[in-house]
Parts: sequence; structure tokens; C-alpha cells
Amino acid sequence: MPPSPQLIGRAVRVLVCTEQKTFVTRELEEVRVTFEGIDGDRHAGHTRPADVRTPWYPKGTPIRNTRQLSLVSTEELAVVAETLGIPKVLASWLGANLELVGIPRLTFLPPGSRIFFPEDAVLAVEGENEPCIGPGKVIGEHHPDKEKLASRFVKAAWEKRGLVAWVDRPGVIRAGDEVRVMLPKPVTYVLP
Amino acid sequence: MPPSPQLIGRAVRVLVCTEQKTFVTRELEEVRVTFEGIDGDRHAGHTRPADVRTPWYPKGTPIRNTRQLSLVSTEELAVVAETLGIPKVLASWLGANLELVGIPRLTFLPPGSRIFFPEDAVLAVEGENEPCIGPGKVIGEHHPDKEKLASRFVKAAWEKRGLVAWVDRPGVIRAGDEVRVMLPKPVTYVLP
Repeated sequence: MPPSPQLIGRAVRVLVCTEQKTFVTRELEEVRVTFEGIDGDRHAGHTRPADVRTPWYPKGTPIRNTRQLSLVSTEELAVVAETLGIPKVLASWLGANLELVGIPRLTFLPPGSRIFFPEDAVLAVEGENEPCIGPGKVIGEHHPDKEKLASRFVKAAWEKRGLVAWVDRPGVIRAGDEVRVMLPKPVTYVLP
Repeated sequence: MPPSPQLIGRAVRVLVCTEQKTFVTRELEEVRVTFEGIDGDRHAGHTRPADVRTPWYPKGTPIRNTRQLSLVSTEELAVVAETLGIPKVLASWLGANLELVGIPRLTFLPPGSRIFFPEDAVLAVEGENEPCIGPGKVIGEHHPDKEKLASRFVKAAWEKRGLVAWVDRPGVIRAGDEVRVMLPKPVTYVLP
């Protein structure tokens, strides 16, 4: 199936993290993506060591890096902020690489979906990025008056924390880019 | 989710094609899989040129190779053979790299499913392998008495031609191996 004419959004922000001591990302006007991910980003690489996200592999085992980029949605972040009772949750606090607007329920795009950008880059969706406590701590640091934001974040961001994806086709991604989404053929697998 | 205890099968056959002039595969006792696919197989590689399977990319563009291995099911091949009125459809005629038995409706395993083998290897499912006329021609060559097998194959094998997958974790795959399947978290995406 070609990209759906009903699923057209925009890249609001493009962000990277080139440090190892934090996961917080900072905005750039554009990034180049290769088969390793975003040039210079801390999550770039053909492979990555298995971690708490993949408990079915021995910790540290080299596995394919299908978590090269993380994507969040402007609309979903607004819902998370409202639930937490704060004005905003920034994409950078979550370590996101892309903030998209206009793709409804971004977090629910199924694995295998492709996200197209105007200058050749295409991302393939690995799946939902399950919220952990790290970004909640960063949010808490920005709101010292609020209690328990770190743990509340995990619940508030459940199924609203966006996606992880890998690069299917290299190219350039710019803030402001139009974004088109292609869904995989729908399949229903029922356990025997 | 860990591998489902309800989805345990067996690798009946392990096959490769090391030639360029045919896609027909031949059986081996075992293969080594790396992040490029099966060592020496014609479909191995980190990338592949976009082709008729990916019409949304300009032909020949280097894209990530998510079609490193093709997998078929003993049960589904038996149904295809019955539909065609022939005794057997061999995995090798379809250019398959693995024939699995015991995983019901293999072709319907959703993108992102992981297939685990005992000696470390894990495959990740890209999706259904849509049947084309090539394997039908090979089947026809083995049954010169039957008419129009090539085109009848495409219809008979629809949603029964197995999967394509890439290597998520390197290792060894042997004929006879137990195979376990892990389904991704089910998601339903409804277009706006």
C-alpha cells in the first residue's frame, strides 16, 4: 500500500543527543539519517546491546538496532502535560528525535509502518516506546513544586510516549518537513 | 511479551541459494546467520536495491534489507499443493530459506514478530511474502502435464506463501531446531 492520503503530518522539531551523560535532546534545523540512524546521535548504530527493553536476550548481546530514532506527537504530549497538570512536556525532555504533529494516535502506528520525508529519508516503525522513569525525572527537575512527577509520568504517558523506529532509506529530515505515513497490510493473528 | 508457549514449531528444512541465475534453494543441514542474513545466500546483505516489491521507492535505490530470509510453512504448502492438484510444493521451488512446521497460519504472523532458534539466532518478521509468478514457473517445469500452473500458483498461494524476515540476532539455524515465536504487542490503528 502506498502512503495513506489520510495520514499526512509535519515534523515540528528535529532533535539529537550527542552526549553520553544525558538522554535529553536539543533542537537542530535538520539532521542527516544513514542506515545507522541520526549522524552523531547517541542511539545511532547498526547494532545495540540488548538491555531492559529486550529481556528475552542476554543483557549486552549485540542485536539489531531497531531503536535508532524516537518519535513523539505534539497532540499526545499535550495530553500527557494535561494529565500531569503542567503547561508543557517538551520532546527534548523525553530524549525524542522527532516531534510530529497531525498524525492521530501516533503511538498506535503498527510495527512495519513507514514514515516518509520529502528529502528521501524513510523511517520504519519498530513499535511503541514504553515510558520509563527517566524522562519523568527530567520533567520533575523542571517542576520542583510538583510531587512524584517521575512516577506519575510513566502512567500518564502510557500509550502516548510515541514510537521507536529505524532508518529504511537514508536522507535528510528538516524541521517543518511534511510527513506521510504508509501502514502495513493489516493482519490479525489469533493464537491457536 | 516473551515467546508464546502456544507457538512452538520446528524447522523442517534449511535452504540456501548461492547462485545468481536461479532463486531455487537447496537444502543444507545448517546455516549461519549474521546481521546480513544467511552467509553466502543470494538475498544476504545489509541493504538491497528497491524493486517491484517496494514501488514507493525509485527502482534501484539502496534501502534496508528486511527481506534477508524467506520462510514457508509445511501446512500452508500442503494446502497450495492440494489447490493446484499436485502431490507436493517444495520449499526449494519457492526459493525459501526455512520450512517451518507447527506454527499455525505462519503467513499471518504480524510484522515485528520474533522467531527464536536454540542456538542464538532470532529472526524478525517484515511481513507476508506476496506470491509472484516465478515459483509458479518452477512448479510448472516439474509438472509439464498440468496447464497454467505458473499463473494458478499466484492465486493458490495467496496468503499462504510465508514470510520474509531479517536477522535480529546472529547465530546458527539447523534442520530439526525447535522454533518459538514471540508476537508483538497487538495494536489496532484505525484511520481518522
